[in-house]
Amino acid sequence: MSNLDVPYKIYLDESEIPSSWYNVRADMKEKPAPLINPATHKKLRVEDMTPIFCTELAKQELDDDTAWFEIPTEIQDFYRMYRPSPLTHAVFLEKALDTPAHIFYKFEGNNTSGSHKLNSAIAQAYYAKKQGLRGVTTETGAGQWGTALSMACAFFGIECKVYMVKVSYEQKLFRREVMRTYGASVTPSPSMETKIGQKINAEHPGTTGSLGCAISEAVEVATSTEGYRYVLGSVLNQVLLHQSVIGLETKKACEKYGIKPDIIIGCAGGGSNLGGLISPFMGEKLRGEADYRIIAVEPKSCPSLTRGRYVYDFCDTGMVTPMAKMYTLGHDYIPSPNHAGGLRYHGMSPILSKLYDDGYMEATSVEQTSVFQAAEQFARTEGILPAPESSHAIRAAIDEALKCKETGEEKTIIFGLTGTGYFDMTAYESYNDGTMVDYIPTDEELEASFAKIPKIDL
Amino acid sequence: MSNLDVPYKIYLDESEIPSSWYNVRADMKEKPAPLINPATHKKLRVEDMTPIFCTELAKQELDDDTAWFEIPTEIQDFYRMYRPSPLTHAVFLEKALDTPAHIFYKFEGNNTSGSHKLNSAIAQAYYAKKQGLRGVTTETGAGQWGTALSMACAFFGIECKVYMVKVSYEQKLFRREVMRTYGASVTPSPSMETKIGQKINAEHPGTTGSLGCAISEAVEVATSTEGYRYVLGSVLNQVLLHQSVIGLETKKACEKYGIKPDIIIGCAGGGSNLGGLISPFMGEKLRGEADYRIIAVEPKSCPSLTRGRYVYDFCDTGMVTPMAKMYTLGHDYIPSPNHAGGLRYHGMSPILSKLYDDGYMEATSVEQTSVFQAAEQFARTEGILPAPESSHAIRAAIDEALKCKETGEEKTIIFGLTGTGYFDMTAYESYNDGTMVDYIPTDEELEASFAKIPKIDL
Repeated sequence: MSNLDVPYKIYLDESEIPSSWYNVRADMKEKPAPLINPATHKKLRVEDMTPIFCTELAKQELDDDTAWFEIPTEIQDFYRMYRPSPLTHAVFLEKALDTPAHIFYKFEGNNTSGSHKLNSAIAQAYYAKKQGLRGVTTETGAGQWGTALSMACAFFGIECKVYMVKVSYEQKLFRREVMRTYGASVTPSPSMETKIGQKINAEHPGTTGSLGCAISEAVEVATSTEGYRYVLGSVLNQVLLHQSVIGLETKKACEKYGIKPDIIIGCAGGGSNLGGLISPFMGEKLRGEADYRIIAVEPKSCPSLTRGRYVYDFCDTGMVTPMAKMYTLGHDYIPSPNHAGGLRYHGMSPILSKLYDDGYMEATSVEQTSVFQAAEQFARTEGILPAPESSHAIRAAIDEALKCKETGEEKTIIFGLTGTGYFDMTAYESYNDGTMVDYIPTDEELEASFAKIPKIDL
Repeated sequence: MSNLDVPYKIYLDESEIPSSWYNVRADMKEKPAPLINPATHKKLRVEDMTPIFCTELAKQELDDDTAWFEIPTEIQDFYRMYRPSPLTHAVFLEKALDTPAHIFYKFEGNNTSGSHKLNSAIAQAYYAKKQGLRGVTTETGAGQWGTALSMACAFFGIECKVYMVKVSYEQKLFRREVMRTYGASVTPSPSMETKIGQKINAEHPGTTGSLGCAISEAVEVATSTEGYRYVLGSVLNQVLLHQSVIGLETKKACEKYGIKPDIIIGCAGGGSNLGGLISPFMGEKLRGEADYRIIAVEPKSCPSLTRGRYVYDFCDTGMVTPMAKMYTLGHDYIPSPNHAGGLRYHGMSPILSKLYDDGYMEATSVEQTSVFQAAEQFARTEGILPAPESSHAIRAAIDEALKCKETGEEKTIIFGLTGTGYFDMTAYESYNDGTMVDYIPTDEELEASFAKIPKIDL
């Protein structure tokens, strides 16, 4: 293969799977704003969080100083079932684009959950098991997190209750059956099983749901069921910590083969993949050891970084969670039902929000039809049919590579290919049929949503 | 991980992907019976086959003597997109079974087609392109072959028309959209678009189709459309040749890590996976250099090896193809609609049929509910949600491992995990709901089907 100066697909050895997670907060001079109690506005302590979260995870959540957390052996063993994941040189895509750019992608989809979500799911299930819990509750949007958590809970033999955003539940029957095969119970959200679900259904009749609603329901059930805690697949600091395995492997592969990225790109919904992918690179940047352009890509229909406010807001629609300072569209924001994929969370990881606000990274937003165009081109050239979420990053990577074609620059681009689209064929069908439409919220819609964010004066 | 004496997941280097295919026929003292013209009963020559098949593939089909075929560079490059595939030590399954057996599986599902079928699809698309054809037609059952061929044709920029067994077409809408995303046209079979489809629909009103019907339609269209040829994803000698990459990689991984299999297990529908997996091991056995127990596993609902006749029969329902001597249930045999997965072909690879008839391998058949039990256990312990087809091999591997538990023998078992079940969730749903039923054809049903096989006196 003529244009290969490194192996096409870079697999590390099993021994090179990280044995510690990296906590980027340790290298941030200015830390992300703390989680606060919505009633008292006081900074949360571990003991405030443990009624909702597993104790060990609450500690990880609040630890801004420890740079490295050793990965427990049981989790390392599980990682070996599907890690290390390959860093692939997109030679066929480069050829199709006729670009001088070098494009690489870190592919996290080679496991049954179909995405990177398993990296944190197995950690969270492990700590729940270790704490002697009976089970955990969670929400899922596109279904990747719910699938990942179901797999992790089956592995450790604990129960798993999933509240699934209704529109996804209806579009993704196959996802439900995967979760059931792993022994989980799956409920469409908002349901009539919880108080908050009943309230949301009453206020928004016919709603197709949102991650914010599903979080509220899962938290309500976790806090009212003996031996249960709530777990979350994105947004939280602990999740970015676990997802650092993506970036650590990527960095090791780059070092091993002399790849020096100029641009690192990731899709961003709650921020788990992007945060994990960039963490060791961002660490270098924060310590002044190297510089990279880092780009978050979000849907134009759910543009938290590019059009949101950087303020304290609730993490859920029902206002039952602590408040986080983050880029948010308002905890009540629900993207149009036309929006096909994931990346539908109203807020953004507090870590990424802070880094973005401090100018350490950029953000861009893209329309979904252009995302599916990129997905189709990628599928046909690189073979892998990507998840709609991941395809946001593909879109941006292609756009950067085409800019290189204009300027003649040989930039090296790495993007995160978070997962596969095998359960997203309803969305692909509407693209294939030409019936997919784009949706961009108006300023007025966003203002109305912002107006519902409580004003917090600290 | 305490019970690991070798790495958990054995990835070869890219440089260890085979550069030649191995043709097991070269080491067979008694060759498989030749394909014959159904009218004249004469042995087919290359020129008899080229109206239907690509010329280079026809040559491979009829070559019983050349042991090694160099893999063209373009195909080797494509293989690097998803190969080498891992040979995984099933440590978590072993632990769950509490067996002294060592279980390994060669996993071919880490690509968008979801199975090993891509290994031959890319070869066949390459030779079609090289011959200057406009496109190819084919049939698909569970949809894996159709998906694989769509990907391969998209890669080389040729057209792809797929006739999909109606029951699968209806159960697997997602498969259709994957094929469409890769630019293929997909028609449920039997259709009303072909003469043979019309005839089959008239004779079997309400039929849910069979691979045999779909083959007839695809052949009719290939031979009546300018610039088209027909390609097939299993059964044929050429397909087993291409699939030898599975076995060659498996053998190399075994040699590298000192694994000596006692038993090699594969599911068998048309025989492509099993034939590919065992080929280099069978070569050793044929040359008297080593011995292995080799077990073909088929569904009790479509038991060609275990209950079929070893006679000349048509490869398709419509009797438009050449005739092959193989284990067959009769070209008219259509498994019950209760049968959920693939492995629904009425016949069996002539190579495997000959080897089985000569005593070089064993065969067993299993019921589908026990297959899904094995699939569930495998998914929960090893993480990967397997295809129903592959799960036949899992069932047999678990049964052999449980025998070892009784006897205390530390046998080493390798099985082929041909693919993932992500598009098979309708079948999993019926298993999860407890509504799945088993089906075993009666002797009378089989006799009626055998009666339709033409008597050939050579």
